[in-house]
Amino acid sequence: MLSAMDDGIGTGDGRTWGTLGIAGVGLIGGSIAAAAKSRCLFQRVIGFGRSRERLEDAAARGLIDELAVDYAAASEVDLFVCCLPVDRIGQAVREAARHMAPGTVATDAGSAKAGICREIGSSPSPGVTFVGSHPLAGSEKQGFEHADANLFAGRICVVTPSGTDEPTLTRVIDFWQHLGCRVVRISPGEHDEILARTSHVPHVVAAAVAGGLREGEQQYAASGFRDVTRIAAGDPELWTGILLANRDAVIDEIGHLVERCGAISAALADADSDCLRRLLTSAKARRDAFASRFNHD
Amino acid sequence: MLSAMDDGIGTGDGRTWGTLGIAGVGLIGGSIAAAAKSRCLFQRVIGFGRSRERLEDAAARGLIDELAVDYAAASEVDLFVCCLPVDRIGQAVREAARHMAPGTVATDAGSAKAGICREIGSSPSPGVTFVGSHPLAGSEKQGFEHADANLFAGRICVVTPSGTDEPTLTRVIDFWQHLGCRVVRISPGEHDEILARTSHVPHVVAAAVAGGLREGEQQYAASGFRDVTRIAAGDPELWTGILLANRDAVIDEIGHLVERCGAISAALADADSDCLRRLLTSAKARRDAFASRFNHD
Repeated sequence: MLSAMDDGIGTGDGRTWGTLGIAGVGLIGGSIAAAAKSRCLFQRVIGFGRSRERLEDAAARGLIDELAVDYAAASEVDLFVCCLPVDRIGQAVREAARHMAPGTVATDAGSAKAGICREIGSSPSPGVTFVGSHPLAGSEKQGFEHADANLFAGRICVVTPSGTDEPTLTRVIDFWQHLGCRVVRISPGEHDEILARTSHVPHVVAAAVAGGLREGEQQYAASGFRDVTRIAAGDPELWTGILLANRDAVIDEIGHLVERCGAISAALADADSDCLRRLLTSAKARRDAFASRFNHD
Repeated sequence: MLSAMDDGIGTGDGRTWGTLGIAGVGLIGGSIAAAAKSRCLFQRVIGFGRSRERLEDAAARGLIDELAVDYAAASEVDLFVCCLPVDRIGQAVREAARHMAPGTVATDAGSAKAGICREIGSSPSPGVTFVGSHPLAGSEKQGFEHADANLFAGRICVVTPSGTDEPTLTRVIDFWQHLGCRVVRISPGEHDEILARTSHVPHVVAAAVAGGLREGEQQYAASGFRDVTRIAAGDPELWTGILLANRDAVIDEIGHLVERCGAISAALADADSDCLRRLLTSAKARRDAFASRFNHD
């Protein structure tokens, strides 16, 4: 096995980094593979999964070099990235870590961090280190068929140190940067609180709005409804896992959201146009700041 | 003055329809003017507004033929369409109607209907008839500079009869159809209940989500947040008027939305993944039905 240190991981000097292991070769795992391949970051990529047939397809597309349906081959990887659904990451990394050689670094791409980081810890087996990651990239599409080597270009990747040693942190940060991400370091708990506001509760709200549409009323829904509810088309299985993985922060933030809706409702009940205008103006200011910062429409 | 009846209103035979009056030459009023011009539906178009300068600009762009800063010239129109903000429609139509000749038909383009239809009634002055309309078309853009002759092509226009005689109804329906709309007839109250669900509460929710974003957290918001909050960038003044004009239905529907959010929160608190999956699956089914029906993404 090539040693990651010998091979320059963390130095950012452009030399290849040995063997990359990707557990879960779907949209995210497949895009990581595609990005790593297109940038020649590793000498080989091993895809781990449950379905040999799917992995063979991914190999036929050139995303992975080798495939494995159990974690014995984790002994050969230098960097291991778990891209499974959030509710399976903890167990998968712990199981794979039992096979890893000392010096192996593991990370993930899960949308909730505190539970996963607590379950895995910073050293899931002797000499093996773990730090949580969450690249803020994705799509409502699923499967490596939609893999995109540029999915991460210019996107934020949150890395969540929690008792992590600096060499591990540097190695994982370098990895995401080489995929094109801008890396931000915050704690797992802080990540989960913020993502509840920016991602998880928006999903809850989209589902709540979409869930209220009655039969025959679709024709009265226009572009506003379309935009607000777009993410409600996401995979219910995946989102059940994400919301449960961050349940405390999501419950809190649903509470805050309900309060903000209640404030608007109260202003309406009082026919208080000044208050209503103030609430809508404040929301617009925050939306405009977001849009202008990121050139969003 | 040309008589609307003589000139073929309601026959859909393509002959021009005399004089169109448009109060409020903004995005909607300007687009109606542009659509009517491009289809040669009227012999002339009079724009009514408060700012002579703005109206002169609209005339210079060829959207209107004549301009008026008071409603005396309403005596010359065959069809009058009020495109002012909802909180000004009732008074404007009643004032303009005092000048209209018997046989004149008036309608509007407001996003809430019950209050306006109640305030104006079906005959705001002797021989003058009114029926409410709401073309489900628009944009976050404002002003006739963004007027689009095809804004209404293929869009729904809701016409809300309420004690309306059939000739008036036919005339207004024909008008919207000639602009490219598909016309649906429902009562003003039914319109307001449905639009609360499909438009007004989605706006409330978008504002509530955008309003929760904290300073420095913008970088953690990605495409889901962008889509859910897009309409929160709309004009607070305009939306204050719309929400107040439909306050009873909006308050009710905020209540239903809060219940649906509460159901998701309760499933999370119970860690009830089956219930959560069921709620998200039902929301996805409704969103997918909406999307497939209208070729939305």
